[in-house]
Amino acid sequence: MKLTELFTQPDPDFGQAMTALLETFHHSDDSQAPYQRDSFVHQLDQSSMPASGISTTEYLARLAALVPGASHLTSPHYMGHMTAPLPAFTAELSRLLVMLNQNPMKMESSRLLSFLEREVLAKLHRLVYRENDGFYEAQMHAKDAALGVMTSGGTIANVTALWLARNRACGDDLFSLYEQGYRGAVILGSRLMHYSFDKGMDLLGLGAGRVWRLETDADNRLCLSALERALVQCREQKLKVLALVGVAGSTDFGSIDPLPELAAIARREQIHFHVDAAWGGPTLFSPRYQGLLDGIAQADTVTLDGHKQLLVPLGTGMLLCRQPDLMMTVKREAPYAIRASSFDQGRFTLEGTRPANALYLDAAFQLLGQQGYAQLIDANYDRARRMAELIDAHPAFELMSAPVMNLLSYRCIPPHLQGKALDEAANEQINAFNVALQKAQRAEGHSFVSRTQRAVSRYGTQPLTLLRAVLLNPLIEERHIRGLLDDQLRLGSLIASQLFDQAEQPGSVA
Amino acid sequence: MKLTELFTQPDPDFGQAMTALLETFHHSDDSQAPYQRDSFVHQLDQSSMPASGISTTEYLARLAALVPGASHLTSPHYMGHMTAPLPAFTAELSRLLVMLNQNPMKMESSRLLSFLEREVLAKLHRLVYRENDGFYEAQMHAKDAALGVMTSGGTIANVTALWLARNRACGDDLFSLYEQGYRGAVILGSRLMHYSFDKGMDLLGLGAGRVWRLETDADNRLCLSALERALVQCREQKLKVLALVGVAGSTDFGSIDPLPELAAIARREQIHFHVDAAWGGPTLFSPRYQGLLDGIAQADTVTLDGHKQLLVPLGTGMLLCRQPDLMMTVKREAPYAIRASSFDQGRFTLEGTRPANALYLDAAFQLLGQQGYAQLIDANYDRARRMAELIDAHPAFELMSAPVMNLLSYRCIPPHLQGKALDEAANEQINAFNVALQKAQRAEGHSFVSRTQRAVSRYGTQPLTLLRAVLLNPLIEERHIRGLLDDQLRLGSLIASQLFDQAEQPGSVA
Repeated sequence: MKLTELFTQPDPDFGQAMTALLETFHHSDDSQAPYQRDSFVHQLDQSSMPASGISTTEYLARLAALVPGASHLTSPHYMGHMTAPLPAFTAELSRLLVMLNQNPMKMESSRLLSFLEREVLAKLHRLVYRENDGFYEAQMHAKDAALGVMTSGGTIANVTALWLARNRACGDDLFSLYEQGYRGAVILGSRLMHYSFDKGMDLLGLGAGRVWRLETDADNRLCLSALERALVQCREQKLKVLALVGVAGSTDFGSIDPLPELAAIARREQIHFHVDAAWGGPTLFSPRYQGLLDGIAQADTVTLDGHKQLLVPLGTGMLLCRQPDLMMTVKREAPYAIRASSFDQGRFTLEGTRPANALYLDAAFQLLGQQGYAQLIDANYDRARRMAELIDAHPAFELMSAPVMNLLSYRCIPPHLQGKALDEAANEQINAFNVALQKAQRAEGHSFVSRTQRAVSRYGTQPLTLLRAVLLNPLIEERHIRGLLDDQLRLGSLIASQLFDQAEQPGSVA
Repeated sequence: MKLTELFTQPDPDFGQAMTALLETFHHSDDSQAPYQRDSFVHQLDQSSMPASGISTTEYLARLAALVPGASHLTSPHYMGHMTAPLPAFTAELSRLLVMLNQNPMKMESSRLLSFLEREVLAKLHRLVYRENDGFYEAQMHAKDAALGVMTSGGTIANVTALWLARNRACGDDLFSLYEQGYRGAVILGSRLMHYSFDKGMDLLGLGAGRVWRLETDADNRLCLSALERALVQCREQKLKVLALVGVAGSTDFGSIDPLPELAAIARREQIHFHVDAAWGGPTLFSPRYQGLLDGIAQADTVTLDGHKQLLVPLGTGMLLCRQPDLMMTVKREAPYAIRASSFDQGRFTLEGTRPANALYLDAAFQLLGQQGYAQLIDANYDRARRMAELIDAHPAFELMSAPVMNLLSYRCIPPHLQGKALDEAANEQINAFNVALQKAQRAEGHSFVSRTQRAVSRYGTQPLTLLRAVLLNPLIEERHIRGLLDDQLRLGSLIASQLFDQAEQPGSVA
């Protein structure tokens, strides 16, 4: 085969083989290729490329050995992953999007899709900020305006928000802060802020240690009195507050900070107000639940993730800006690309060249519609409430927070500690028990929740190991939830006998 | 249709429609949907999502109207885009990759593909650094080692390199630099450094103005005497030199800095040496051309882009590290993800959640092999030399640099200035002429080169508008090159008559 034929002659067998691989994969689970580092390492230990190319048949054999080792993220038995289950049309759309290979950094290399990106951002801006038709007509395609930017994910969106806030305060020269009489700069938010904020403050040269993680109330919401105290401390210590961060859907509890109150404080103090709604943003589609996000429209910037509740593939984050001129504080240009007088979106983005993933969003917006998203959100949030009831009703489980969205934290209590008052030593035992349980369930591969480590107010500041359920897959039914909890009862019984030398029969949540 | 069926029931018509759309697109060019901002804006002016989802048939109609407006990046008549032409198997592989939707930030959400990523990085590390088998056996899957990281593109890779260099020098607290007696920090490199370095220095809080862009020689390579002078100035001004950047394939000329000499100076001065080989890295596959990159193995860090000469879709950058422990200077962890004691790649990456694009690289490595890449590189670099000959031989063109890789800069000279000595006023006229010419060619849509603005040594420091050809597509033949140049002669003749009131017949390069 001539090498150029690789570019012009599709191999029809290859396409069919992908269909078959996906089919097999979706009908299996993680138990087929257990989570074993040593075998994975052994399977992929080549540090040299083949000298000459292998045939597609040979490569298909390689893929057939690789694919079963991937994580089955969208099985309805798996309730621990934050990745979106993808509508079936996504598979075919990906062929189009990837092969068009448009680069919306620059209009020249994406043309119409540059404007599609702006349209998608306008739709999400409207969902969050609800400006009127005139506003969008004037701003969505204005040259020196940006209702937002596309990013590779929530991390870059959060970093971009901090970058905007910092450049607004002192440009790219930190020493001007000192000339203003400050001794440093901090950001304020709850202890549940995403770790990307630490990364961002590290990156921005302000120091990861300048992320002040403040205490939360019993519902895992930023405590306003703690915030007021922090503001006083900042004044006393001559620290510039660059941004106040509101969490709209904490990764562990799905809790939402009191956004209207935070907005009022930010306005009073003239601080950039950022809301991290990477998880929670799409709640706004639901007439029933959108009230949870009241106050978000007052945020200067909002992070959203397409690849979470907007149900598109990984690699699709966004930062929205209330005021379309805010992005100008980081505007750049380059002579062979992103010209100053152009419509090139790359003038504003932290990234340069990037894929036109806005097309995935466009397809999902059109094919699901607002009502489709609302229906899925409602069903998922309701399902989380049902799961919480099942957990709450059984003595072997302890629910760690009331459900807000579709993220739940809970833990299993080993038989000998059920119904007891739990002191620090007991919690240590329960931690070890839940680590072992989560690992055993993951290794078995039939059902899955993730785990985290957090303090919850009823036990003070002691870090607790928690199990974390994510109810995002529309195919999850109550039987899957019951099955997952039953697996935990069964494995928990085994583990308790190993860890605590007990022998008891597992029960059932039924 | 029940909403959940969107997730379970693929619509076979949709897949066929994508094939047809791609087929039509690849047989058309940009002339079908001219580059017109106003019509694009008019076509995409909806700021609200539909209330309920439309049918796939309706969405296909929308796509059929959108796709012709995309840029035809891979037509062999288009020699101005830096995006890779994609092998045909990429279309089908994308379905698999997207629907697996693995997240290699965390082993739990990608399992085997976390190790595939490490294997791919090891292969590229070996291409650049040529360590022995024992090194790769020990390092490629070691827990606290990283031969590199995947990024969304070259920009994040370059930013990560600066981040590593900065944290190595002073951690995330810039004031410790001041305590060391410095008054600031700079990076040094040639005037042709990519603009992502300015963005990076802005982001890192060191100031975009701290990118010292030094002069280049007649071959557009960083001038060593200018570098030595800059080092003296930095000492005198008490500026810490964070990094020395070598360009291995400048975006405008394909020029390569004198890497062995830069490496020696960096070693002598104990400066982090970074090579931006986003474009040029794959030259190493070619036994004939790899000598161009001598010295790259001494770089502390190297940026590569998968989506350029490695021929995979957009969204695939990499930063390689000579020493596998360098990444530890930016290592992070989070309680519900990227655990300290894990193999989670997210401990090191600037981004968080991201797609498993390493699979595209794996497929290309296996199916093309080293020899396949070498063959394509050789053919492209040879083709650039042939194009340079054609340009050089015709009085209507001026070649602006001798070909090094497969990037060429040249310009058209309007008839009344051909064969004349060109002063500043003449160059101003030629600039206007080339801007108009590039725009006219782009608007016509039959062939394409991009344009840039750069000084070249023979005309001093005057910024010149240059046409920029990228010979990356293996399907480009000499007839396409001749056709593109003939288009320029024809359009140039028209434009000259408009701009300079001349009437002449266009010639031909034949």
